[in-house]
Amino acid sequence: MNNSLSSNDLQEHRQKFPGLVNKTYFNFGGQGTMPDAALNAIIDTHKYIQQVGPFSGQINSWLTDKINALREAIATELNTTAQTITITENVTAGCNIALWGVDWQNGDRILMSDCEHPGIIATVEEITRRFGVEVTICPIMDSLNDSDPVEIIRAHLTENTRLVVLSHLLWNTGQVLPLKEIAQTCHNYPAKHTVRLMVDAAQSVGSLDLNLPELEVDYYAFTGHKWLCGPAGVGGLYISKEAFGHLNPTFIGWRGVKMDGKGKPIAWKQDGTKYEVATSAYPEYEGLRNAIALHQSWGTSKQRYQRICEISKYLWAQLQTINRLSCLKNTPPEAGLISFTVADIEHAKMVDDLEKQGFLLRTIADPDCIRACVHYLTLKEECDRLVSAIDKQLLTDN
Amino acid sequence: MNNSLSSNDLQEHRQKFPGLVNKTYFNFGGQGTMPDAALNAIIDTHKYIQQVGPFSGQINSWLTDKINALREAIATELNTTAQTITITENVTAGCNIALWGVDWQNGDRILMSDCEHPGIIATVEEITRRFGVEVTICPIMDSLNDSDPVEIIRAHLTENTRLVVLSHLLWNTGQVLPLKEIAQTCHNYPAKHTVRLMVDAAQSVGSLDLNLPELEVDYYAFTGHKWLCGPAGVGGLYISKEAFGHLNPTFIGWRGVKMDGKGKPIAWKQDGTKYEVATSAYPEYEGLRNAIALHQSWGTSKQRYQRICEISKYLWAQLQTINRLSCLKNTPPEAGLISFTVADIEHAKMVDDLEKQGFLLRTIADPDCIRACVHYLTLKEECDRLVSAIDKQLLTDN
Repeated sequence: MNNSLSSNDLQEHRQKFPGLVNKTYFNFGGQGTMPDAALNAIIDTHKYIQQVGPFSGQINSWLTDKINALREAIATELNTTAQTITITENVTAGCNIALWGVDWQNGDRILMSDCEHPGIIATVEEITRRFGVEVTICPIMDSLNDSDPVEIIRAHLTENTRLVVLSHLLWNTGQVLPLKEIAQTCHNYPAKHTVRLMVDAAQSVGSLDLNLPELEVDYYAFTGHKWLCGPAGVGGLYISKEAFGHLNPTFIGWRGVKMDGKGKPIAWKQDGTKYEVATSAYPEYEGLRNAIALHQSWGTSKQRYQRICEISKYLWAQLQTINRLSCLKNTPPEAGLISFTVADIEHAKMVDDLEKQGFLLRTIADPDCIRACVHYLTLKEECDRLVSAIDKQLLTDN
Repeated sequence: MNNSLSSNDLQEHRQKFPGLVNKTYFNFGGQGTMPDAALNAIIDTHKYIQQVGPFSGQINSWLTDKINALREAIATELNTTAQTITITENVTAGCNIALWGVDWQNGDRILMSDCEHPGIIATVEEITRRFGVEVTICPIMDSLNDSDPVEIIRAHLTENTRLVVLSHLLWNTGQVLPLKEIAQTCHNYPAKHTVRLMVDAAQSVGSLDLNLPELEVDYYAFTGHKWLCGPAGVGGLYISKEAFGHLNPTFIGWRGVKMDGKGKPIAWKQDGTKYEVATSAYPEYEGLRNAIALHQSWGTSKQRYQRICEISKYLWAQLQTINRLSCLKNTPPEAGLISFTVADIEHAKMVDDLEKQGFLLRTIADPDCIRACVHYLTLKEECDRLVSAIDKQLLTDN
């Protein structure tokens, strides 16, 4: 698990990810390339379920163990305990658990950054409508190069603020927010209720080197199918020990309740399972668990993050050499997302043309840009090929 | 798709379900035996996603088509249109969408049967706590043999009742409720608001022959992993055209919203996708779609339901011949669930012992009984073997 980087052969490791071999992949922030080990675990789990079940005392007990094993594996990645982890279908579900679980009162306020994902914005808007809660949007996007996001957040807190909603690693500009300082700013603010911090961690889990208890966040929602390269449909939510008792379950099912001898619910479970609902795609859980294990066999989360920063800095510097292209960030990225604009060309057309040549990137609508993601798996040669392809396209376009 | 039963070879068809071949399976109400065609579709989809994506313009468009194809396949089974179908993770999620989507006011009432699943009971209890809603439990369990559930429900409606919550096919006693009469009773009741009917259809989808618009239900939540024999983790919710505009989305994500050119949510989608959240286990969607296609290749839902009733009646009659065993229902079952008690033996022990011999059944906590499920796939010989095994166990026990 703790191999030093120098002893690893990235080329050999990459062969375990079929999604990497036939193209040049820069969409890890959309979905990660799932390794064969994950697909094999999914297949084996499906087969075993049919062999021993699909519904039986034996398989139900086996599945419970496997679910707990995933919770443990996720906890290891986040430097927390399994008790703080709720397994969800995706990052948005985790955000919804946190957003709907607050005991909202008329007049409460939500403070949200201007870089959040549409699903989260829509959820916040529906909550404001239902409960008479107000939302303030604070301008974090413009702090990318020359202002302090902590100060911006502090300036927008009020005595009625109950929840701050933001992403750790902004999906559009690639900015990493100083989460611990923000959490402390929230918790120390003299509001009527404790100001809690809910984080959309779609881009940060599996890319940053994380210690969630140290970051002091309250709610941290993530997915397994992006930087962890697991299958789509499995994610999670971390809830700090301190925040746990303050969050009501909303979508509820048998996985979250204790029952009496007649099968009647009598209490909530007292760990992350409290917020889990019902039957899920358990074979995919095994897929994610095996994807995590494969990453860990290559290097620690710190080593993987360092490699991401190295390759990210390299691509960022190379992209800057292209005429007409500007990276949004003035300094090297602190993670694997590099967003850039290209003058006098429609970004969507450029991305489509690149996709036809086997370079997978995506556009972002706000700010209008193209996003390239590099993982620890990305090679410098891939960055070089991308830069050449963009160069060539701009020449043709001229 | 509409082969007549006589032209089918059940033995050959059963070979397509690996879960059937090495045991005698009576837990379809817990989870269905997934066919090879479903697993192969799951594997192929995973591989194709890695080949063309996992995140790209091409794969995202392909997946959208596949998601719509599943919605169409489900709609065909339920005799409705794809627009009325929301794809969910499981039946409980579908119930939660309906339960949390009502614009609850202090003093509103929910009427719920006494045969509902613990997850639904816990959700209703949390809603009563949050919104000052009251719940009445009506005694449906005892209507199995000698009273009219419609009259019981009618007698418990009040002018404040807004939602009636019950199952179509009761998971504990196997009773089929006359849903159309109940829906009409609800809709015609002179309450302050229209009384809507929310149905837990965990046991009825894939077993009964359904025409949802004709049944006049408002919300009908189901799963694909029981009687439809799809993979765990995919289900759905039917919302009638009439009820659609009255249900707010609660858990919200990008799948349910329309966005402007800046990616900001501006409106809800105007079909079942309004209530869908975010990234799901799409390969499993293809698994369910292929499982449905396989059932349809064997016979229509009417033909499958007729076969279920035939075999169910047979097992029910055979079980009655066993000394000390009593079926809860006095008359032949109207579906595939047969619940029974055995005198002077612990039901859990009997189920454990049967599982060790390759007979998969389950206990039910309330009423305390054992449940055997037969599908259209079940053979008379399997019923005979089960009856012999129980007989033998009771002799040994004596």
